[in-house]
Amino acid sequence: MFSSCWLKSSVRYSRLIRQFSSENSFFKVELVPSDRKTPLQPRKVVAPRFEKKTRQKISDYLKQMATPEIEAKLAPLRAAVKEYGDLIRDLKAKGAPKIDIDKAVVELKARKRLLEDTEIALAPKEASFDRLKLEDLLKRRFFYDQSFAIYGGVTGLYDFGPMGCSLKANMLQEWRKHFILEEGMLEVDCTSLTPEPVLKASGHVDRFADWMVKDMKNGECFRADHLIKNSIEKLLNDKKTSAAVKQDGQDVLARLEGFDNKDMHEVITRFNFKSPITGNDLTEPIAFNLMFPTQIGPTGDFKAFLRPETAQGIFVNFKRLLEFNQGKLPFAAAQIGLGFRNEISPRQGLIRVREFTMCEIEHFVDPEDKSLAKFAKVADQKLVLFSACNQLDGAPAQEVAIGEAVAKKTVANETLGYYMARCHQFLMKVGIDGRRLRFRQHLSNEMAHYAQDCWDAEILTSYGWIECVGNADRACYDLQQHYKATNVKLVAEKKLPEPVDVNFVEAQANMALLGKSFKKDAKKIQTSLQQLTSEQVSALEEELLAKKLYNLSVDGQNYALTPEHLNIKKYTKKIHVQEITPSVIEPSYGIGRIMYALLEHSFRQREGDEQRTFLAFKPLVAPIKCSVLPISANDTLIPVMDAVKEELSRFEMSYKVDDSSGTIGRRYARTDEIGIPFGITVDFDSLKTTPFTVTIRHAETMSQIRLEVSELGRLISDLVAGRQQWSDAQAKYPKFEASATE
Amino acid sequence: MFSSCWLKSSVRYSRLIRQFSSENSFFKVELVPSDRKTPLQPRKVVAPRFEKKTRQKISDYLKQMATPEIEAKLAPLRAAVKEYGDLIRDLKAKGAPKIDIDKAVVELKARKRLLEDTEIALAPKEASFDRLKLEDLLKRRFFYDQSFAIYGGVTGLYDFGPMGCSLKANMLQEWRKHFILEEGMLEVDCTSLTPEPVLKASGHVDRFADWMVKDMKNGECFRADHLIKNSIEKLLNDKKTSAAVKQDGQDVLARLEGFDNKDMHEVITRFNFKSPITGNDLTEPIAFNLMFPTQIGPTGDFKAFLRPETAQGIFVNFKRLLEFNQGKLPFAAAQIGLGFRNEISPRQGLIRVREFTMCEIEHFVDPEDKSLAKFAKVADQKLVLFSACNQLDGAPAQEVAIGEAVAKKTVANETLGYYMARCHQFLMKVGIDGRRLRFRQHLSNEMAHYAQDCWDAEILTSYGWIECVGNADRACYDLQQHYKATNVKLVAEKKLPEPVDVNFVEAQANMALLGKSFKKDAKKIQTSLQQLTSEQVSALEEELLAKKLYNLSVDGQNYALTPEHLNIKKYTKKIHVQEITPSVIEPSYGIGRIMYALLEHSFRQREGDEQRTFLAFKPLVAPIKCSVLPISANDTLIPVMDAVKEELSRFEMSYKVDDSSGTIGRRYARTDEIGIPFGITVDFDSLKTTPFTVTIRHAETMSQIRLEVSELGRLISDLVAGRQQWSDAQAKYPKFEASATE
Repeated sequence: MFSSCWLKSSVRYSRLIRQFSSENSFFKVELVPSDRKTPLQPRKVVAPRFEKKTRQKISDYLKQMATPEIEAKLAPLRAAVKEYGDLIRDLKAKGAPKIDIDKAVVELKARKRLLEDTEIALAPKEASFDRLKLEDLLKRRFFYDQSFAIYGGVTGLYDFGPMGCSLKANMLQEWRKHFILEEGMLEVDCTSLTPEPVLKASGHVDRFADWMVKDMKNGECFRADHLIKNSIEKLLNDKKTSAAVKQDGQDVLARLEGFDNKDMHEVITRFNFKSPITGNDLTEPIAFNLMFPTQIGPTGDFKAFLRPETAQGIFVNFKRLLEFNQGKLPFAAAQIGLGFRNEISPRQGLIRVREFTMCEIEHFVDPEDKSLAKFAKVADQKLVLFSACNQLDGAPAQEVAIGEAVAKKTVANETLGYYMARCHQFLMKVGIDGRRLRFRQHLSNEMAHYAQDCWDAEILTSYGWIECVGNADRACYDLQQHYKATNVKLVAEKKLPEPVDVNFVEAQANMALLGKSFKKDAKKIQTSLQQLTSEQVSALEEELLAKKLYNLSVDGQNYALTPEHLNIKKYTKKIHVQEITPSVIEPSYGIGRIMYALLEHSFRQREGDEQRTFLAFKPLVAPIKCSVLPISANDTLIPVMDAVKEELSRFEMSYKVDDSSGTIGRRYARTDEIGIPFGITVDFDSLKTTPFTVTIRHAETMSQIRLEVSELGRLISDLVAGRQQWSDAQAKYPKFEASATE
Repeated sequence: MFSSCWLKSSVRYSRLIRQFSSENSFFKVELVPSDRKTPLQPRKVVAPRFEKKTRQKISDYLKQMATPEIEAKLAPLRAAVKEYGDLIRDLKAKGAPKIDIDKAVVELKARKRLLEDTEIALAPKEASFDRLKLEDLLKRRFFYDQSFAIYGGVTGLYDFGPMGCSLKANMLQEWRKHFILEEGMLEVDCTSLTPEPVLKASGHVDRFADWMVKDMKNGECFRADHLIKNSIEKLLNDKKTSAAVKQDGQDVLARLEGFDNKDMHEVITRFNFKSPITGNDLTEPIAFNLMFPTQIGPTGDFKAFLRPETAQGIFVNFKRLLEFNQGKLPFAAAQIGLGFRNEISPRQGLIRVREFTMCEIEHFVDPEDKSLAKFAKVADQKLVLFSACNQLDGAPAQEVAIGEAVAKKTVANETLGYYMARCHQFLMKVGIDGRRLRFRQHLSNEMAHYAQDCWDAEILTSYGWIECVGNADRACYDLQQHYKATNVKLVAEKKLPEPVDVNFVEAQANMALLGKSFKKDAKKIQTSLQQLTSEQVSALEEELLAKKLYNLSVDGQNYALTPEHLNIKKYTKKIHVQEITPSVIEPSYGIGRIMYALLEHSFRQREGDEQRTFLAFKPLVAPIKCSVLPISANDTLIPVMDAVKEELSRFEMSYKVDDSSGTIGRRYARTDEIGIPFGITVDFDSLKTTPFTVTIRHAETMSQIRLEVSELGRLISDLVAGRQQWSDAQAKYPKFEASATE
């Protein structure tokens, strides 16, 4: 049973959802000098007062890890984790029964969770993050908001307003440039509507589900793990609850992530949990498939789903893409598009939604050679890696050069390592705070049986560490599944060093007889026979000769074949190329999640004036690049305004004119709030020279320079593209001191 | 009942689908000189031979309109159309019964169709378009192809490959720049999943449907109008069919577009049409809703649909957008996103699909003032207008300055006229052939009752004139519908020239009593009372006083209200602003259709070598901007290749290296085929100078120049952005003559 976590790497193959309760999470908001003070003062971190109990906080605990006092407190917890990590390694080495290993893993996870919760709880209280204030800003300035609000809204659906749209479009454009253009990937754009057989083959129809329980009387649904968590938390906060029950509840909470339906049913029964709304009894946990069902065409019998991921569209186009690449491996295909997941009861804003934009790459490679020439370019790049080993040892994440990590086999291969490094570069480019980013390796029990290695890029937000990108080596599972379902070979040809003679044994169906014996199933049997390996055919032949009968099993059904049903064909062929099913390295990006993390990381308050909040975006992704503010409504300024607008349009720099009557300071505050990085002010000095001059104010530092209008477009476009930094502009152009009116 | 044609302007409000049978459509393929001849020879149009009967052809008949011989043949047909146009005007003026007018309209349409078919049939046979050749190229080089082909494919679903993806992305980027950025529009990005009540209010749940008939025995479905058309065409081609039946059939064909379910049932019964597959009897026409149904959440009782258009997402966000615009009108919001339509039996490739990308603008404006200051900028721009008047008169489309068309009230207002001009500019920018573009006005019976004017941008392709953009003045219908459904006022405030005293009469519900009398319906009654105008309340009061009873009708149900159920409140208020429901001007772009038309218009064959087909894209939208071709595999060329690649990357110009062993000529042909506008060749002369030099070949004309690598990036990026033309580059750099090897 898959969890509904959007990242398929974990979604498909694990029930582990990494999140922390908001109560014990802390975070630091960066405070920068207020307008009223001298600009360019070094930034300071001060504590905003807490106005409401409900404020969300989370610690930037990566920075705290090194503190000796904290480490001392964490040491016994780390040791406790390590004890079980060692135990598991030992059990595996001894070949202990699976049940013993599984039990130890449950205990290990409980200990890991206690360690991580404590790490966050120990972070200094004064470092805090005010999520309500950010949410207020995002709603008020229409970055995004709940969909269909005038109809009462729908949980898990969000509409992006002009600011959110532009931010998202800029992020996607950078993604396309960073990956598709720079790496020469083959982009595809496939449909969201997906026929059932495709998702049956991929495993989603059978296993892409969450457990839910229903109110026995009114049918209301709850996600089983959420219901247990909330019910236990209620118990823990109840003074009447006995110490023994509290201990039991805490124990369940710690182990909940590893529970299956039977475990959850046992807990619900033992604690006698009821519907939190009606108090009615609850059903046993029922599997609820998370795909949105629909039908194609008018007959109603062509079942389809909205795709839960874009990846399958790439796999079913593999043959065309390989051909497009002139038959050569390796190559990467990419897709930017919508995914849909019918969450049972989504919460957490943009983190868990029912319709979302994702960017996925499928890098097809020879399974026997996953080296990559361009890996050398990134080998020295340092990443914060939280390896499975670290997790088993209770050790903190470590900064390691990716070249070293691959050399030591911490990261499975160069291709995977390369994409992790490129992922890090992308997240830095759009403005994620590197100190709140780590790559966490999946534990072997979190991965599918066929996956070889998987590293999630996790970003620290006020919701805890959120997995925003999955980087997985998925071996050749998907291509093989689609081959089995369609009998269309999804393979590449690999030239052999020298030709070899190979003996083939094939079972050729006698269709006339098969049709007579098995009617409409004949085709299925033929396909199954075609897919047998030479070894399997030899075994079949042997049995058929001996018993004059062979029971062929197809999709769980048995067909009794007699020698007349088929011909065994044997031949030798000189083989120059070998057919291989490529392995797939799959980086998968959740754009909404990255965007939300980016909003948190960009959120600032002016020092001494915490009501003045703003967003310090990188110019590259800022929704609007410039504000244009006339100092007065006087008509004499119009020619300068027109010149500025024309200059900015010439360089395709977006701008927002604010010619309202507020003071220039208030207008700055308003444009700062939506993250406009550069404010262009037209004042009466603008007219004094020919050509006109204007000032540019850098929102983050509030420092200003003065320059000619004709230089504006190129400078802003250079600042946006990163060809120049603000400090370069400050060095080149005269400083402008804000007047008293600001 | 709406037709399923994707453009909502007509979809919602008309049954008229403009398409021609492929047999009598012709088109000209542009032929340009072949590689083997001298470059820069002027282009000539020559006739490709027809190899197959199935080849698709269509005439570029706009160019033929002026020919006197053709006009002479068309004159009687034009007169026949005009006769009925005049009759209808006359009937309307006399206030004749609706049924008489409707009958005349059916006859008018039949005559118009005959005229248009004849126009196309009269086009010279030697001008032809080979659609099969284009389709072969598009499939082979993976521009797009049927989705899930390895699973047998799904009709009406297409996947875009690397070339199609990039072409689409470039078109969308230009659209965003041309409209959202340049016009300062507010972009939104809403969900595809849409709850039922939203689409109930918009009218889609009840009326967004096509008529279908089912095979009585096996349930197979056919679109009723398609079945009739195909069945009659079969009859017409049958030698045994009597002349009388043929005449009857032709008559039905001409009138089919205006048929409702009863008309179609009558025809099916009269002709005794059966299922074309089984010969079984058919049901009466059944309405089939074209939206894809699904459910949100696990309970199964939250019905939803995939949106059939993006517009509703903008309307439900109107309040937020108005606020974002600081309460001011006019403003425009835009959305780029997916639409879904569950076509009964889609054909015609990208023209009619089940999932598609559309770009929609909703320009909100004071209904009493639709003037637009920036209209002056486009007033002189000439468009080919095919007005309702022209259509009624049987006259051809005319080239008119948009300023003149608005002044003469041919086009309803400046805002609508402005968007038509901007639409024309956009289509020209991406590469649509202006001679195959016209704006066709909807006849009054094609529009919804509330729509005020509508002009479709129609593009001539081998499928006939295809509506690719709708430009409609939709009045205030949608906002009012959502207000009725939600009781959330969707209005803007308009400042009055001076304050006025206004008398208000309101009916305030006595909820306690209403609840007692009408239980759960009380809330609905309250809402209905709140939405009454002062006049309506006064009338209600009068009746209530007289009869002590008032029958309030809500959603078709009657509620008997007594005086106790409500209080009438009267008061006078000084009003400074007036609340108005804005009108909406809606341009709606079908990107897939424009893209398909663009592919046809860009398709070329080399003169004298018609097997060598290629795509002459504008550099702005070309999927890949340059090819990079080393003249030999010799290692000495590697430093030049590297320098070229680095230079192109610095300017973000996409390129494709073709270092395969084919001759340079064959490699040129391969890159021409996918529309790469510039070919950069690295030869042994490249090494002879420092810095290195290379040649650039302009694919369309095959002329070449030689320049230094360091000048490459800026030149190509200028050519792509349109800052320089190829002729500028030819004037500046030395010409390079292709050597014998090419």
